[in-house]
Amino acid sequence: MKALQFINNELKLSEVEKPAAENEALIRVVKSGICNTDLEIIRGYAGFNGIIGHEFVGIVETSSDKGLIGKRVVGEINAGCGVCELCRGGDSRHCPTRTVLGIHARDGAHAEFVSLPNVNLLEVPENVSDEQAVFTEPLAAAYGILEQVEVRPETKVAVIGDGKLGILCAQSMALASRNTFLIGKHKDKMKVAEAKGVEGVLLEDAPKLNRTFDVVIEASGSESGFATALDLLKPRGKLVLKSTFQGKTNLEMWRVVVDEITIVGSRCGRFAPALELLRDGKVDVDSFISEEFNLNDGVAAVEKAQQKGVMKVLLKM
Amino acid sequence: MKALQFINNELKLSEVEKPAAENEALIRVVKSGICNTDLEIIRGYAGFNGIIGHEFVGIVETSSDKGLIGKRVVGEINAGCGVCELCRGGDSRHCPTRTVLGIHARDGAHAEFVSLPNVNLLEVPENVSDEQAVFTEPLAAAYGILEQVEVRPETKVAVIGDGKLGILCAQSMALASRNTFLIGKHKDKMKVAEAKGVEGVLLEDAPKLNRTFDVVIEASGSESGFATALDLLKPRGKLVLKSTFQGKTNLEMWRVVVDEITIVGSRCGRFAPALELLRDGKVDVDSFISEEFNLNDGVAAVEKAQQKGVMKVLLKM
Repeated sequence: MKALQFINNELKLSEVEKPAAENEALIRVVKSGICNTDLEIIRGYAGFNGIIGHEFVGIVETSSDKGLIGKRVVGEINAGCGVCELCRGGDSRHCPTRTVLGIHARDGAHAEFVSLPNVNLLEVPENVSDEQAVFTEPLAAAYGILEQVEVRPETKVAVIGDGKLGILCAQSMALASRNTFLIGKHKDKMKVAEAKGVEGVLLEDAPKLNRTFDVVIEASGSESGFATALDLLKPRGKLVLKSTFQGKTNLEMWRVVVDEITIVGSRCGRFAPALELLRDGKVDVDSFISEEFNLNDGVAAVEKAQQKGVMKVLLKM
Repeated sequence: MKALQFINNELKLSEVEKPAAENEALIRVVKSGICNTDLEIIRGYAGFNGIIGHEFVGIVETSSDKGLIGKRVVGEINAGCGVCELCRGGDSRHCPTRTVLGIHARDGAHAEFVSLPNVNLLEVPENVSDEQAVFTEPLAAAYGILEQVEVRPETKVAVIGDGKLGILCAQSMALASRNTFLIGKHKDKMKVAEAKGVEGVLLEDAPKLNRTFDVVIEASGSESGFATALDLLKPRGKLVLKSTFQGKTNLEMWRVVVDEITIVGSRCGRFAPALELLRDGKVDVDSFISEEFNLNDGVAAVEKAQQKGVMKVLLKM
């Protein structure tokens, strides 16, 4: 099968064996999405070698669960050992020996076929398009913040960063708070969130809102985003970190102590609530799609995704 | 009156006016304690100029509250405006225009007299010695962690740093958890905590406990303490930051995101519970006292406090 591989610091389209999928489901990928984490990986994050890609929708070809065969599915990206305390508790996302689709010790989804454990798969509701379904993973990561931090209608929330993740976070927060702001650099990008009740604020105007927020979500992926977040937060506020930076970050941690800030690291969310949001049309993801490439042009697609101003780039298999 | 001043980057014993104490109580200081924050201040932290010192016990000389006069008191170090939302809510510790005793815009307690608002003062129980009472502020800061982070008897807690603050934190945590560890470099210093049910572990032996702790408290004040804390924590664990570092710290924040760690900045605690602990003999502070100097020898006392291995240095007025 064809697959987009990152091997020895090189990204290339390769012809490789289909996944063996022993004890797992084999899924024929229909579409996949290029995520910022893919771009981080080809810059060296996580030291991954293999097929990249972890946002996908596909059709189950083979599975020990006969009910899954032929179903259109998305898949949770963390695959746990199944026997440790965390896995037995129903959450493999932090299993110490987990593999992560296209990120850690498991080939990913920018390929004609991918394999995942049966338990990772969720059927996509009929009215959710393939393109929308690709957003399940990042939307789950954004909406999952609400399981980590209490957000009420009156909670004042700022999201920093008007990239894909930032806009998904802002739309998700606006479902819980009527007081959600998106701090960004691009008025046009912020419009998607504004249509869902978020107030867009240009970064240069943000200082007038300093020390007024209960919750700030850092989704810009830049070191300066952290400082901006500390400026915006009230004392005892909560800073949610969504971006995985490569390497070390230079931070004024004394401010966290003096203002008694709580920082919440936030990675993956549950897929089921995200699929419900897509089914019910609560979140706009269609406006995100910049372009769709054939898998054959995967290298060009990744180059496109790295260009300034480009939002989601999809691959079609 | 005599006072230990830090002015224009110089620490000196000066003859200054008594505090005017308008609308405040005037307290004759009996004893004060030299804190690491004092040492940070004379290294430039917080840009403070004035009389340093914020740990003290004294006798109220004048006050608009006649009931306070003649009482032996300690004092909460944050003085709020009294009218903002936070102050009206009964917590001036984060009032945006607060002054902080000997730290920010308010002369401190290494002096013959000090002034504070009446509401900041708490009477010291009779059976608590002057020396013990000086520890009220740091003990409140340590014990206050339990108001920020849930610690149950089975919660596995590590405190990093066997300085004064670390040992107070370890003793405080051991009152809530029977699973408290102190990670330090000095077997002799750790004994004070071990006598209170804490398990001392040398830093070099800490790696064998990696990824086993629910809560880790960073009280070493060093950048490496942060990395050690991340090593020790379980996924989704809580890291309590107690130390105020000067300047920026270089941190692997991506680990906070991947392991979904929560970082809790923690500064001051309430005095009343700390005074109760001292009254009931729940925490050993007597073993901390390295030496007592007369205020006249305050500069020498601060030099002493900076020496390696020295614990609490007290000043007598």
